[in-house]
Amino acid sequence: MTISKAAPINAAKVSGPGRKEPATESTALQLGELSEHLGYALKRAQLKIFEDFLRCVAPLQLTPAQFSVLMLLDKNPGRNQTEIANTLGILRPNFVAMLDGLESRDLCARIRSTNDRRSHILVLTDKGRAVLARAKKLVAAKHEARLNELLGPANRAALLAMLATIAKEF
Amino acid sequence: MTISKAAPINAAKVSGPGRKEPATESTALQLGELSEHLGYALKRAQLKIFEDFLRCVAPLQLTPAQFSVLMLLDKNPGRNQTEIANTLGILRPNFVAMLDGLESRDLCARIRSTNDRRSHILVLTDKGRAVLARAKKLVAAKHEARLNELLGPANRAALLAMLATIAKEF
Repeated sequence: MTISKAAPINAAKVSGPGRKEPATESTALQLGELSEHLGYALKRAQLKIFEDFLRCVAPLQLTPAQFSVLMLLDKNPGRNQTEIANTLGILRPNFVAMLDGLESRDLCARIRSTNDRRSHILVLTDKGRAVLARAKKLVAAKHEARLNELLGPANRAALLAMLATIAKEF
Repeated sequence: MTISKAAPINAAKVSGPGRKEPATESTALQLGELSEHLGYALKRAQLKIFEDFLRCVAPLQLTPAQFSVLMLLDKNPGRNQTEIANTLGILRPNFVAMLDGLESRDLCARIRSTNDRRSHILVLTDKGRAVLARAKKLVAAKHEARLNELLGPANRAALLAMLATIAKEF
């Protein structure tokens, strides 16, 4: 590991240079033990990564969750709504709303299943495939490349492995 | 690093044993490149950790965000709403709603600032301090201890350091 030991988060920096600070004296707050909590650290890092993702794919107007859905549909054509939503851990009402959005932009389509008339099969449209291809390029060239540069390839792989362990085994 | 290299996430496991599967054949979906995206891996790990946190502090009915607020108030008494919200990266409307909830349960109080009459200073109540002390014990004994066991202390420290790097420098 070439990375330095966990340093306490600089609260002044976390609060963001663009945000309005109160008029009174404003020395950075102490995070104390909070910075040692994995859940807190994960959430802060995840928010930063999602912000950067949104910036990188801004021309295509895709959220990280929408990107995940398109990726999954591309890799698994002909699966139904329940399967896609369950795999991504997205709650049904949220997923239905997201599909409505993607469908209205002609990025995916719901087709009634011939096996089970109550079930809908999801497919990418041609436009959806084209947008996904552009998004993947932007994400790789801007977002993931910068993360790779920040962490180094070995640390990035180690981080990914630990996150997968938590997702699978915790 | 004693942790094994990033293994692809088992989609069947990710979708959760308690969730309802469709009646049709249901082989696990392929995540493909998605499992190599840090944002996706972070979000999945964060959701797992938050679920476990909620279970561990269920007797006290605290969310991870509420816990963070109580921790920060305890460490930084007499700071105003804006400072606390900014430090935690919580949007103002969400933060006001959260404070309403904490105040109605008598865990914290808003006091009008003597320096700036428009500003509110936040303090923990005695009950808030007692609930926080119990929450910290539950989190340490159940939640963080299990994470430590899963990852090992060295990996846990390395993970925390990388997440802090992302939160600060990305």
